[in-house]
Amino acid sequence: MHDNQLLITTMITDSWNQQLKRTSDLFNLLTDEQLMLEIAPGRNRGIYLLGHLTAVHDRMLPLLNVAEQLYPALDEPFLTQPDNAATALPAIKELRFYWKTVNTALAIHFETMKPADWLLKHNSVSAEVFEQEPHRNRLNVLLSRTNHLSSHYGQLLYLKK
Amino acid sequence: MHDNQLLITTMITDSWNQQLKRTSDLFNLLTDEQLMLEIAPGRNRGIYLLGHLTAVHDRMLPLLNVAEQLYPALDEPFLTQPDNAATALPAIKELRFYWKTVNTALAIHFETMKPADWLLKHNSVSAEVFEQEPHRNRLNVLLSRTNHLSSHYGQLLYLKK
Repeated sequence: MHDNQLLITTMITDSWNQQLKRTSDLFNLLTDEQLMLEIAPGRNRGIYLLGHLTAVHDRMLPLLNVAEQLYPALDEPFLTQPDNAATALPAIKELRFYWKTVNTALAIHFETMKPADWLLKHNSVSAEVFEQEPHRNRLNVLLSRTNHLSSHYGQLLYLKK
Repeated sequence: MHDNQLLITTMITDSWNQQLKRTSDLFNLLTDEQLMLEIAPGRNRGIYLLGHLTAVHDRMLPLLNVAEQLYPALDEPFLTQPDNAATALPAIKELRFYWKTVNTALAIHFETMKPADWLLKHNSVSAEVFEQEPHRNRLNVLLSRTNHLSSHYGQLLYLKK
C-alpha cells in the first residue's frame, strides 16, 4: 500500500512537471513582441499571464509551507489588478527570469518531499479544520495549481503563429 | 496507508469532477450562437471544442476498460479533422446531449471503482510494458484528461461576454 501511495504521488508531481515544462517551452518560443499582444480581442496579454502564473506559483512557496514568497511585488499588478495596458509592468526579460527562479525554487523543495509530507496541511487551513478535512493538504494544492496552469496554457497557445 | 490511497484517489476524481462541472456550467451558459463563433481569430469554434471534448471523453470508456465508445461517429469530425466551417457537424443541440450522456456514463462507472481498480492498466498498454511501468494506469489517464479539459476550458472562457 505504501508503494501505491508513492506511485500516485509521483503521478501527480509528474503531471505538474509536464504541464510546467510545456508552458515554459511555450514561453521560450514566444517572442517579447508576441507576449505583448492580447491573446484574444479584449483579453489578457501574454505578459500578464506570464506575471500572473509566476505570482501564483511564487505564493505556493508559503502556501505549501516550504519557503517565503520570493517576489511579493508581483501580487499587486498580476493578482490584485486585472490586465491593463496603462499599468507599468516589469520588463518581460525580468518576468522570464522570475518565472524560472520561482519554479526552480519549488522543484528544489519538491525533490526532498516524501509522500507523507505531501499529505500535511497547507497554510490556509487551520489544524482544527484540517483534522476534519484531510484533503486540504499540500498535494491537493499541487493538483489544483496544475489545473490552473493548464487553463492558462490553453489560452497562451493562441499566441503561437 | 490504505486510507491515504483512498484519500489521494478521491482528490484526483474530485479534481476531474470539478473541472467537468465548471466546463458543463460554461457550455450551459453559452448560447448556440456563441458556440458557433471562433474563440480567437482563426482558432477553433466553440462547437468544435464541445464535440472534441465529448469525443475524447467518450474514448475514455474503452481506454479505461469500462465500456464501449458510445458515439464513434464523432471521431472523424472532432479528432481526425481540425475545425473547418465547411464540414457539416452534428447540431449543437445533439452535441450538448452527447456531452451529458458521455460524462454521465463515465460517472456511473467511476462510482463503482475502488482505489485498487484505478491502478489497473489502461487499454493502450500491454501487460508486459505495464509490469515495468505501473504508472500507465487508469488513474493516470484521468489525471491527463483533467489537464486536457482544463486547457480547453481556459480557451472556452473567451467565448463568454
